[in-house]
Amino acid sequence: MIRLYVQDPLSPGAPVAPSPEQARYLVAVMRKAVGDAVLLFNGRDGEWRAVVETVTKRGCILKVEAQTQPQHFPPDLDLIVALVKRGPLETIVEKAVELGARRIRLVATRRTNVEHIKLVRLDAIAVEAAEQTGRLDVPGIMTTQKLDAMLDDWPPERRLMFCDEAGDDPNAAWGGDVGKAAPALVNLKNAAQHDLQQNAQPNGPWAILIGPEGGFTPEERDWLRSLPFVVPVSLGPRILRADTAAIAALTLWQAMLGDWR
Amino acid sequence: MIRLYVQDPLSPGAPVAPSPEQARYLVAVMRKAVGDAVLLFNGRDGEWRAVVETVTKRGCILKVEAQTQPQHFPPDLDLIVALVKRGPLETIVEKAVELGARRIRLVATRRTNVEHIKLVRLDAIAVEAAEQTGRLDVPGIMTTQKLDAMLDDWPPERRLMFCDEAGDDPNAAWGGDVGKAAPALVNLKNAAQHDLQQNAQPNGPWAILIGPEGGFTPEERDWLRSLPFVVPVSLGPRILRADTAAIAALTLWQAMLGDWR
Repeated sequence: MIRLYVQDPLSPGAPVAPSPEQARYLVAVMRKAVGDAVLLFNGRDGEWRAVVETVTKRGCILKVEAQTQPQHFPPDLDLIVALVKRGPLETIVEKAVELGARRIRLVATRRTNVEHIKLVRLDAIAVEAAEQTGRLDVPGIMTTQKLDAMLDDWPPERRLMFCDEAGDDPNAAWGGDVGKAAPALVNLKNAAQHDLQQNAQPNGPWAILIGPEGGFTPEERDWLRSLPFVVPVSLGPRILRADTAAIAALTLWQAMLGDWR
Repeated sequence: MIRLYVQDPLSPGAPVAPSPEQARYLVAVMRKAVGDAVLLFNGRDGEWRAVVETVTKRGCILKVEAQTQPQHFPPDLDLIVALVKRGPLETIVEKAVELGARRIRLVATRRTNVEHIKLVRLDAIAVEAAEQTGRLDVPGIMTTQKLDAMLDDWPPERRLMFCDEAGDDPNAAWGGDVGKAAPALVNLKNAAQHDLQQNAQPNGPWAILIGPEGGFTPEERDWLRSLPFVVPVSLGPRILRADTAAIAALTLWQAMLGDWR
């Protein structure tokens, strides 16, 4: 069933006018006619079944029928990604939506070349990915901030999973019987256990930081590692491109602390 | 430092003639001159430092100096991927190399539309990814097989991580203190523990199976789930594209049983 993200409020009987692009997709591409059903969500009112009520030359009108899912959100996880080239950045946005990041934040580091970012284009990719993956919200994409300004302003209760090419604590021990799991998993688990002992929430707010293609500078890495909310993790023995690292980090977090459990 | 995959044997003093494309890249693009160093690997002899010995109009000759790494391989993990469109398939090949799959096998299922696959193009992507990610081997890419023929011939000691959109055992328990980890991680760990108890190797051969965009048919799913070597896992509550699913599955396997530990 086709899913569309719309701006209008959703309630029984409400009329909804899809955007010109959505209307063209529904009528011209997918050949939807009066009476055909679609699913709608707006990030606030859950998911609703609607039917095509009228089709005109200029578009179509949908009529909302019944709610199919109440509104819910993925865990409170930000993906913070250093500015990388357009292709990998678009891949990262699409995959971050599929993998349940709540927000996407862009960051400039010493080794990023700040190009002009087309937020409108990234927003459109996020909407399409949310429609396809079954989410009921579309992650906001925040404009670029400098890394030092971001860290100076950091709320201390939000943990930061720092994907560090230099690896993580080699002494992190795994409790399982079959050898050891990756230190990345152990470090995430230990941080959550520590927060639980401190009477904070074990599944409180988190963020993931992915560096630029050239990596962080030694000064940036030292600073990040010195911050109390930072959890450094390694993503294995091979060099990963930024988009691969982002997908891998989101996967580990969701499997260990997020909504894959 | 530039890394190149070559076919020639690598030993001290050996001359190596890079391909015309590699020579053009070294000389015309990267402006390498006589005496400049590069790294070479051929999938057999480890990684070697070499220097540009001569540059002519028709190419260049390198001279091997000293070994920088002995030959090693990632774990014995096949990625088996149903035929998907060219873009996602090329992404999957690139990322499977970065994430340490040893081989990539293509499979036709009921819901794949078998198009013509350009193995030469996929091989070139694998070579470039291996050069970039720091591997000492290039995964072979096997021509398309039908799923039923593949399963009929399956070696029973090779475990198959089946990424099933219908989810995994909801009763799988996690041993950690902070809630539960994803059943996918628990299922992988349990399968490895079972194999250890059976005196097989805990880190014996494995494979990961990624379905086509339309998913497996109910008959295919039932068959897969009935096979003793199959470990069904779910990749979370959202619908993932095939390339996202492949990267996520490789990540979970490497973190739980592979060389990220």
